[in-house]
Amino acid sequence: MNTLNATHNPQLKSWIASANLANADFPIQNLPFGVFVAHGQTQAHVGVAIGDAILDLAVVHQAGLLNLGGDNNAVFNSSSLNAFIELGAATWSQVRAQISALLSADNPLLRDNQSLRDQAIILQSAAKMLLPVAIGGYTDFYSSKEHATNVGCMFRDPKNALLPNWLEIPIGYNGRASSVVVSDTPVRRPNGQIKAPTQERPEFTACKKLDIELETGFIIGRGNALGEPIACADAEQHIFGMVLLNDWSARDIQTWEYVPLGPFNSKTFATTISPWVVTLEALAPFRVATPTQEPQPLSYLQHQVGVNHGVDIHLEVQLTPEQSQQPSTICRTNFKHMYWSMAQQLTHHTASGCNTAVGDLMGSGTISGPTPDSFGSLLELTWNGANPLTLADGSTRQFIQDGDELTLTGWAQGEHYRVGFGECSGKILPAHRLK
Amino acid sequence: MNTLNATHNPQLKSWIASANLANADFPIQNLPFGVFVAHGQTQAHVGVAIGDAILDLAVVHQAGLLNLGGDNNAVFNSSSLNAFIELGAATWSQVRAQISALLSADNPLLRDNQSLRDQAIILQSAAKMLLPVAIGGYTDFYSSKEHATNVGCMFRDPKNALLPNWLEIPIGYNGRASSVVVSDTPVRRPNGQIKAPTQERPEFTACKKLDIELETGFIIGRGNALGEPIACADAEQHIFGMVLLNDWSARDIQTWEYVPLGPFNSKTFATTISPWVVTLEALAPFRVATPTQEPQPLSYLQHQVGVNHGVDIHLEVQLTPEQSQQPSTICRTNFKHMYWSMAQQLTHHTASGCNTAVGDLMGSGTISGPTPDSFGSLLELTWNGANPLTLADGSTRQFIQDGDELTLTGWAQGEHYRVGFGECSGKILPAHRLK
Repeated sequence: MNTLNATHNPQLKSWIASANLANADFPIQNLPFGVFVAHGQTQAHVGVAIGDAILDLAVVHQAGLLNLGGDNNAVFNSSSLNAFIELGAATWSQVRAQISALLSADNPLLRDNQSLRDQAIILQSAAKMLLPVAIGGYTDFYSSKEHATNVGCMFRDPKNALLPNWLEIPIGYNGRASSVVVSDTPVRRPNGQIKAPTQERPEFTACKKLDIELETGFIIGRGNALGEPIACADAEQHIFGMVLLNDWSARDIQTWEYVPLGPFNSKTFATTISPWVVTLEALAPFRVATPTQEPQPLSYLQHQVGVNHGVDIHLEVQLTPEQSQQPSTICRTNFKHMYWSMAQQLTHHTASGCNTAVGDLMGSGTISGPTPDSFGSLLELTWNGANPLTLADGSTRQFIQDGDELTLTGWAQGEHYRVGFGECSGKILPAHRLK
Repeated sequence: MNTLNATHNPQLKSWIASANLANADFPIQNLPFGVFVAHGQTQAHVGVAIGDAILDLAVVHQAGLLNLGGDNNAVFNSSSLNAFIELGAATWSQVRAQISALLSADNPLLRDNQSLRDQAIILQSAAKMLLPVAIGGYTDFYSSKEHATNVGCMFRDPKNALLPNWLEIPIGYNGRASSVVVSDTPVRRPNGQIKAPTQERPEFTACKKLDIELETGFIIGRGNALGEPIACADAEQHIFGMVLLNDWSARDIQTWEYVPLGPFNSKTFATTISPWVVTLEALAPFRVATPTQEPQPLSYLQHQVGVNHGVDIHLEVQLTPEQSQQPSTICRTNFKHMYWSMAQQLTHHTASGCNTAVGDLMGSGTISGPTPDSFGSLLELTWNGANPLTLADGSTRQFIQDGDELTLTGWAQGEHYRVGFGECSGKILPAHRLK
């Protein structure tokens, strides 16, 4: 998947002018897939983001400008990418190449066909994005050494911050797929059981320590059968692409509930992902080595020698209070810091024989970097509230307040262009009042 | 749901003679729903178990003998019960009443229509059962006080065996829906990371402490929207019915992996459920009070006064070694011992706003009774291997061996009849050999 081809040419330009801006998330080198409903329409279509617009794949396929190698019109007239993904990696790559050609500045085919172009090119501002995939299973990992160390320092023993299994296992747990929502879906602050150390019994009340977790997620592109593990060398062939992911977390609910079976109500109220799936192929120019692993992982988790399993993705979090509408960037970090790779996560997930399917979502775990401004959660940024953040509008935050909008962004930086993820955003509604 | 009606009449008999035997799991008072493919056929149909046979609902509906109140033929020509369940509780109850009438000994309509009867009545031995529902989300609880106490004694502090949150929260965690399989699906022993206390590092090897967990599961019959909790008083209206559930567990993998985010590879390799969903309506005559809860739960978890939230279901586990084929009953217990009810589990699950959907599966947690022969796992029955069981064929077991078949059965005992669950069975295949 790390091989470069004509679609990666940094010199490529599109006849969609907004795609050629240096800070555009969606240049012609990106071509992420998503599902949208154009304003005034009811049918969902599969599209590709290009600049500030969407190329409607249902329209261009219907018009004969895309060849899927068969009668597959339903694939793009769909409310999820799953049917397209099921067609396999060779098709993803062929479709990507065809779209790259179709949108290239020097290709008149669609560019100069004004009536078709009017149908096929929709402004992103004139469409509603849907969840890009039907997610059968959602798994969340815990693969940032810095994050796990910070949490261990805060809640366990600073001298033994990492638990003994952490350096051996890409620790993960099953999340709740039903509450994964697409960016811009409001998120209601959860009620839950909370118990202060001074209280004899818990109370059922609104979460007071609502938090983000800055993560990426990868989408399974090819499943595996029950009882048939995926080898580490093959793992990336099972990945379609990546999204940004905010693993909203109710820290006070989590503290009380999570021993011994892990987080549950503290996480299951919502998980937000970005609407555009950036393919692994689009990220091929940005692959980097993962950090050195010491001790060397057990053999089933060992990477192929000479292959880069990390990705250089710059990540940021913005917090925008409702009243001031002044955004503050509260975190800047990078996916390249992750200790365990996506390949190792998927290998471990299936090592016991667990099956996966197209559309399954795997979260990276909170992505914290080595410096305090690169921590991927308010828990770490404010050290569990001890060091409040001061925002651009002068207000302070220990955790998220009602009306705050949290926005994750991320991009891989090329020369004169970037392969971006767009936004993964959610605004907090007040908790339901209890009777 | 606890109201009795004509379908519960203990005097009712069917013209299917095998349904009238005193120890039949599927008398006319039961009528559980499942999905099957008759031998030689390819299309899955929805059916109802009656004695040793299946009533094919697609056939009787097509013949005009079942009224669904609309044009709903696809509902029974389906590989899952989901579409039927979506029709709602009033329809489940109406269909149950119609089927009860149709199968009643004195009703000649189908009984005396030999050609239709030949199509509509299939021997269970001439059909393959499928997973009864498409499961979007699978959650497993931990609601037996005896089980939680036993585990706490073994692995934590016998003097404080129950963790502080256990008496306040129906503790649960997200399971892996993709690996839920129907009874009679072979289960492959997982490989995984295992670390003995004496070892410096773990090894990746076949599980040596493979175990069962005897559970029941309930199937969501009506979902709730994200952000909209279900009140405890309404919770049972969201439940369609119950199945037997074996939460296969790799104890040695679990011990090493589960801190801090809970069990993962130790559970995700397989969960087996029984094929017939026994409706809550069929279980209405067997409702009993749940054990007294002390302290009284927080108000959101409090039961309606005067309503029985438990069910009296006798449960057994048999172990049959491959070589001897001699079954041994290794556990006898009862669902009525469960501390937290299904209503409380579902209420807590959604209290944070987590959404559920038709077909979601909620496991009870291991059902252990108060006596050593009523423990619902080998972990407890053998006290983590310290007291091996001696089987009928003279062999002993600390944990499950390759070729062992584990079978759960369960029934609610009425006067002269029982409402049974059939079998929830799985045979263990040897682990994949590692390179």
